[in-house]
Amino acid sequence: MQKLTIIKVGGKVVEEADSLAQLLDNFQSVRGNKILVHGGGRSATAMAERMGIPTKMVDGRRITDEAMLEIVTMVYGGLVNKNIVAKLQARGCNALGLTGADLSIITAMKRPVREIDYGYVGDVTKVNIDELRVLLDNEVSPVVAPLTHDCHGNLLNTNADTIASELARAFSKYYDVNLLYCFEKRGVLSDPENDESLIPTLTYDNFQTMKESGAVNSGMIPKLDNGFRALKSGVKNVLITNSASFTKNYGGGTFLSFDRERE
Amino acid sequence: MQKLTIIKVGGKVVEEADSLAQLLDNFQSVRGNKILVHGGGRSATAMAERMGIPTKMVDGRRITDEAMLEIVTMVYGGLVNKNIVAKLQARGCNALGLTGADLSIITAMKRPVREIDYGYVGDVTKVNIDELRVLLDNEVSPVVAPLTHDCHGNLLNTNADTIASELARAFSKYYDVNLLYCFEKRGVLSDPENDESLIPTLTYDNFQTMKESGAVNSGMIPKLDNGFRALKSGVKNVLITNSASFTKNYGGGTFLSFDRERE
Repeated sequence: MQKLTIIKVGGKVVEEADSLAQLLDNFQSVRGNKILVHGGGRSATAMAERMGIPTKMVDGRRITDEAMLEIVTMVYGGLVNKNIVAKLQARGCNALGLTGADLSIITAMKRPVREIDYGYVGDVTKVNIDELRVLLDNEVSPVVAPLTHDCHGNLLNTNADTIASELARAFSKYYDVNLLYCFEKRGVLSDPENDESLIPTLTYDNFQTMKESGAVNSGMIPKLDNGFRALKSGVKNVLITNSASFTKNYGGGTFLSFDRERE
Repeated sequence: MQKLTIIKVGGKVVEEADSLAQLLDNFQSVRGNKILVHGGGRSATAMAERMGIPTKMVDGRRITDEAMLEIVTMVYGGLVNKNIVAKLQARGCNALGLTGADLSIITAMKRPVREIDYGYVGDVTKVNIDELRVLLDNEVSPVVAPLTHDCHGNLLNTNADTIASELARAFSKYYDVNLLYCFEKRGVLSDPENDESLIPTLTYDNFQTMKESGAVNSGMIPKLDNGFRALKSGVKNVLITNSASFTKNYGGGTFLSFDRERE
């Protein structure tokens, strides 16, 4: 099978000129088929503030009312996505920016209201990669913004980590997929305060123990849940790594694994 | 040769819910290969106002400073484009939203400063339709926002009429292209105040005479110049027509022609 690298980068990395330039240089240097999935939350919050629209977060998740949906559509689908595309094109990488609505690659349903009404937030229902496979065969690198659609004409705000893992799962039928979650830290740390405490391989059992003891940062839990879910579905490698230092050799970071730890 | 229909719609049509719904129903009903090119100027002006950024126009053209480039990137590439895509997907049309930077379909150079500094406005230098042809063969309908890029990482604001005509010219080598400019009126009128004075066929000679006598609305002149330029380059039909009433049979409107008028 051909190789495919899916790289998810958080908002902070793509929202600062220096770290974005470094990231795009790294992305450009990845050989073969590749997809970039990006966030943009900080830019959305800043834009909302400029427009006098309050940002409401619950447990680190954005409440997306109609005004906020307009902002994330503009910021994720327009400002962040198109600037990444233009900068990748300048580096000779044939990028194509997409949301889940484009080519209907990711459909979702509006999250049902239980204790919290998240508003126009979508939970993924279907992933379609038919046209993306044709594009990859034509050496195109998709750049995916964290928006989906409900097949009834509405866009929905969807977590970028989930989008990356859902795409990775769908592609794993046809490609050897390496899924990289890139963020500020070197990987998963056993001590969040100590950058030297990197865990090179995080087993599922170990992750469960760390969750129970509270040793994993709450923001990391959905990322790791998504990562293990992807690994279970046939994604070849899932790596949590640093945005600035990932290379074509996948140097450094934390690999996820279902193997039991060697005694 | 296969047929391709390229439809350019002005901002006003796509910015009001009712006229947009009508337009998208019509677009969906066009058979075979099709591309939609849209504007969004009124939304950009409204968004700028909400953000306290003044809109400067010279002869009906937008001065695009850095703040305005950010706004048109968000509004054209994000808000307008992605809402059209989601609504077309809901109609069963496999839409893909693009700017000129995506797949590098349209590169441009920043307009040189002469009497007026238009800012980040791009004049088209190259059109690349290689990947768009593959997408059309896969029954995808591209939806193009009026933004281009300069191959150095910068997006540029570019007139949507020009984008439609440049795409039509490039595709005319491979397709029988019908280029439709859709707007509020039924077509070109000999008397702008009288909707019954529609000119069914506007010859180039006639257009020159009307230009000299001031009988053509100044806003129509670039559209018609673009239209005749496309026709000269091998585009099969150029039609100026009403957004609400164009159908798969191309009913009504003004066809452009280089033939001399029948005596």
